[in-house]
Amino acid sequence: MTIALIAHGGAGNWRPGSEQDALQGMRSSVEAGRAILRAGGTALDAVCATVVVLEDDPVFNAGRVAALTADGGVEHDASVMEGTTRFVGAVAGVEGVRNPVRAARAVLRDGHHVLLVGKWARQFAADHGVELCDPDWPVTDEQRAVLASGDLGWAAGTVGAVARDARGRLAAATSTGGTMGKRRGRVGDSPLIGAGTWADDDTVAVSCTGDGEAIIRIAMAHEVEALVRLRGIGLEEACAEALRELDRRGGHGGLIAVSAAGEIAAQFSSPGMTRGWRVGDGPVETAVGGG
Amino acid sequence: MTIALIAHGGAGNWRPGSEQDALQGMRSSVEAGRAILRAGGTALDAVCATVVVLEDDPVFNAGRVAALTADGGVEHDASVMEGTTRFVGAVAGVEGVRNPVRAARAVLRDGHHVLLVGKWARQFAADHGVELCDPDWPVTDEQRAVLASGDLGWAAGTVGAVARDARGRLAAATSTGGTMGKRRGRVGDSPLIGAGTWADDDTVAVSCTGDGEAIIRIAMAHEVEALVRLRGIGLEEACAEALRELDRRGGHGGLIAVSAAGEIAAQFSSPGMTRGWRVGDGPVETAVGGG
Repeated sequence: MTIALIAHGGAGNWRPGSEQDALQGMRSSVEAGRAILRAGGTALDAVCATVVVLEDDPVFNAGRVAALTADGGVEHDASVMEGTTRFVGAVAGVEGVRNPVRAARAVLRDGHHVLLVGKWARQFAADHGVELCDPDWPVTDEQRAVLASGDLGWAAGTVGAVARDARGRLAAATSTGGTMGKRRGRVGDSPLIGAGTWADDDTVAVSCTGDGEAIIRIAMAHEVEALVRLRGIGLEEACAEALRELDRRGGHGGLIAVSAAGEIAAQFSSPGMTRGWRVGDGPVETAVGGG
Repeated sequence: MTIALIAHGGAGNWRPGSEQDALQGMRSSVEAGRAILRAGGTALDAVCATVVVLEDDPVFNAGRVAALTADGGVEHDASVMEGTTRFVGAVAGVEGVRNPVRAARAVLRDGHHVLLVGKWARQFAADHGVELCDPDWPVTDEQRAVLASGDLGWAAGTVGAVARDARGRLAAATSTGGTMGKRRGRVGDSPLIGAGTWADDDTVAVSCTGDGEAIIRIAMAHEVEALVRLRGIGLEEACAEALRELDRRGGHGGLIAVSAAGEIAAQFSSPGMTRGWRVGDGPVETAVGGG
């Protein structure tokens, strides 16, 4: 069966000079996930490995560098879902965890809960061997300058990945620092199963990015899956319909998806969406704009 | 157009002696919401008023009395959604707010965010004139005894309401103290839009109760809506199909729903589900068991 992986680095455009860094980051992350798929690993392991590389890359708004809260801190959100059992794990509003997607993965592995928030999510991560960091580690002078400028713009740089492994299993992961200047305690779509992330082996795995509040209001990831399953339309058409609904609700954004058959899709209504993909033995490809 | 309101007081059975109190509480809450609908008020106002009465009633696991965290505290979750604009508001893991549904309503009214968590949700509530309380106010000796006994049983008593007003608007609200003995920071389905709560004027409004983690894994509230919209099946059939899917994913629970046409539904796979309803000029009715 065809292995396939596609990752995104957020809806929106890049500041001059950083687009090439972003595309190189996408390439590295796709290769990391793809290596796991190629070696017979699971889609879940592949999407987590992909997102860890993106979290560690300072060009994206996740992990190493993140959008700042209104008072200059960082609160991360992340989620993972695997499509065989539909087990999920997520953390929201978490500070001081080096790779939030690893904390989400630990919640999934533990299996008792789905979503942990705030300092308790950090405590859970610590109890389960996930590496912590200083809460201010993801704060940079450049981010402070953006916050101080008041020109908050589009919060580009949320990251995510979806994959299909050689046994036909699907998985999805999403990770973000949220929106620049956000209120403390604000949670967007990324850690919410059904909004920012969904995976079901029978249909599709999805990871979203963009206007988080609007994405929640249309349950975008689950909506794509429901359109494929209940209306029987193709992957591209389902993604397009979900983005039209997002537009009707006043939001913009994008999404990546992989189907049970191994097709991939990347669509967006934002000015651009950074993405990278590799299907079967094809080459790694990357893009920001285009249709 | 027919006004309709149905409320639930959680999946599961009551301890001996408390069932009559629960049914009286349902009756009072339904009358409170119904009075608003009868006076030409909105479905959103009606479901919030209904849930406030249930939160204030010590028999339910929400507001005044709540399930305890493993360390003996209380963390509330609540959400509201209105089906015309699909605006939503939710709080999770919040302590020291007397009526969590009022905090969720304040988030909806503010309109900037969808979900606020932890102490920041309490701060938001305070900033928006929502009444606070001592974080230990919802802790009772009886709840402490249950926690100490280790016989945590079913976390009955989550509350919710859905309504259709005279202009055909739909709304849903859900509020809970979560599961007895839960880990600090654990968030269940109640505050998650698409999982525990959904409303769309064109189709249906839904509020869920039961195994929160399993409900999240099937996006139960949004799934009911998607089945009605995309498969074109009736309300009862959609609720039954969602509960079958919950069962396939290892969970039990229940849900209440109201359709755009004003039909109501209440179904559950748990041993019982406390509920009360009133449609048009009919009488108030209540039930716990039955089919």
